Amino acid sequence: MLLYESIARQIVQEIQEKSLPHGYKLETLDQLTERFNTSKNTIVRALETLEAHGHIYQIRGSGSFVRRRKRNYYLDLLSHQGYQSSLKKLSLTSKLISKEIIPAPEFVCKELDVDLGEPLVYIKRLHYIGNFARTLCIEKSYYKQSVVADLPLEAINDSIFDYIQNELDVMIGFSDTYIKVEKLKKQEADLLKLHVNDPALVIEEIYYTKYGEPFDYSEATYNYEEAYLYAQASSFAK
Amino acid sequence: MLLYESIARQIVQEIQEKSLPHGYKLETLDQLTERFNTSKNTIVRALETLEAHGHIYQIRGSGSFVRRRKRNYYLDLLSHQGYQSSLKKLSLTSKLISKEIIPAPEFVCKELDVDLGEPLVYIKRLHYIGNFARTLCIEKSYYKQSVVADLPLEAINDSIFDYIQNELDVMIGFSDTYIKVEKLKKQEADLLKLHVNDPALVIEEIYYTKYGEPFDYSEATYNYEEAYLYAQASSFAK
Repeated sequence: MLLYESIARQIVQEIQEKSLPHGYKLETLDQLTERFNTSKNTIVRALETLEAHGHIYQIRGSGSFVRRRKRNYYLDLLSHQGYQSSLKKLSLTSKLISKEIIPAPEFVCKELDVDLGEPLVYIKRLHYIGNFARTLCIEKSYYKQSVVADLPLEAINDSIFDYIQNELDVMIGFSDTYIKVEKLKKQEADLLKLHVNDPALVIEEIYYTKYGEPFDYSEATYNYEEAYLYAQASSFAK
Repeated sequence: MLLYESIARQIVQEIQEKSLPHGYKLETLDQLTERFNTSKNTIVRALETLEAHGHIYQIRGSGSFVRRRKRNYYLDLLSHQGYQSSLKKLSLTSKLISKEIIPAPEFVCKELDVDLGEPLVYIKRLHYIGNFARTLCIEKSYYKQSVVADLPLEAINDSIFDYIQNELDVMIGFSDTYIKVEKLKKQEADLLKLHVNDPALVIEEIYYTKYGEPFDYSEATYNYEEAYLYAQASSFAK
């Protein structure tokens, strides 16, 4: 992690720990520069990162101010590596429905930029909130076998992304997220303990390595009664 | 607009005009510095802005690369000032259902940080895609009267945000977006030409001035057959 990133994280932590309110003025550029014993440039970059991620807003000539925090329970669409990772904050349990090696089907080829038939590790899981009490979503994931090799059961039960990053040394770079709303079909309705034609929130995510290679395409169908999303926009032009 | 922002915009425009593919390597830092006849620092900031907004990814020691563009038809949740503004790209028509001055109801007070009863300009509109052919959403907006004074009919028919920025000189800073899925109730179903209990995508947005004052709370109920959202995440820690 670069210095400005670690300073940015430290400031976020302070905002959270002290529950600083919306509009609270942070220390000045000079004060932050002195406190972190670094260059003005590094602080400027840290503040810009914080602004881009919706933690603060900057007013030219006045300083940096804390932004309102999201409502409880809503999950941040843009936190770190997408929606899935912010789910970790909930107490989730999962059930593995199937795991197999399959030849890439056509609709996955264009998402992962692979040839028809290229081997993929396909994993279908059902996620619950709490101890199998409330269904959260059905997740179908397609991983490039050339990137993840095999995913052992321990990795699937734990965190697949932690395994990929720590054990396989594949760094995850960024992701694309697509959201749409549909009506539930029989099979999903049964799994989610809902009714046919109930609303379904469908979130597709494509994850890329830090070298820009797409390696994971997943489609998750959410129980609409449990799905609350949040996104903080910082404006492009100030 | 600051220099690095205008350079960032110019690069985005080039990416779009030339339809540069995912993974396309941009000019080097030195080349960009020379071309834009500016400092390295300014180019670094422009590239970071582009990365934060999901247009490029940077690999340390290798350079900057173009990110995949979103699917056609999906609307960018984070584009400039939220979802509403990216709707402008569709050919939309609107029908004003009501406009009145109302005392702030309780559920709006906490969103806009106002006292109960403070006067708000309340606007309810129905938006269509194309020439009143397909319903897109029902939008209820609550504007602080102390910020927008009155919103004349021309402004409502045109773009309220353009009016606020250009005529009232109130600069819009950023927004919070909340997304949930519900079942349609009778009144909304009728307006959207859908059925009771059909899925409804509900998007709440709170807009702030660049000084951090919340001034507009809006709740839009979307026709699920027309609502496709997109969000590009850049990772926090590279």
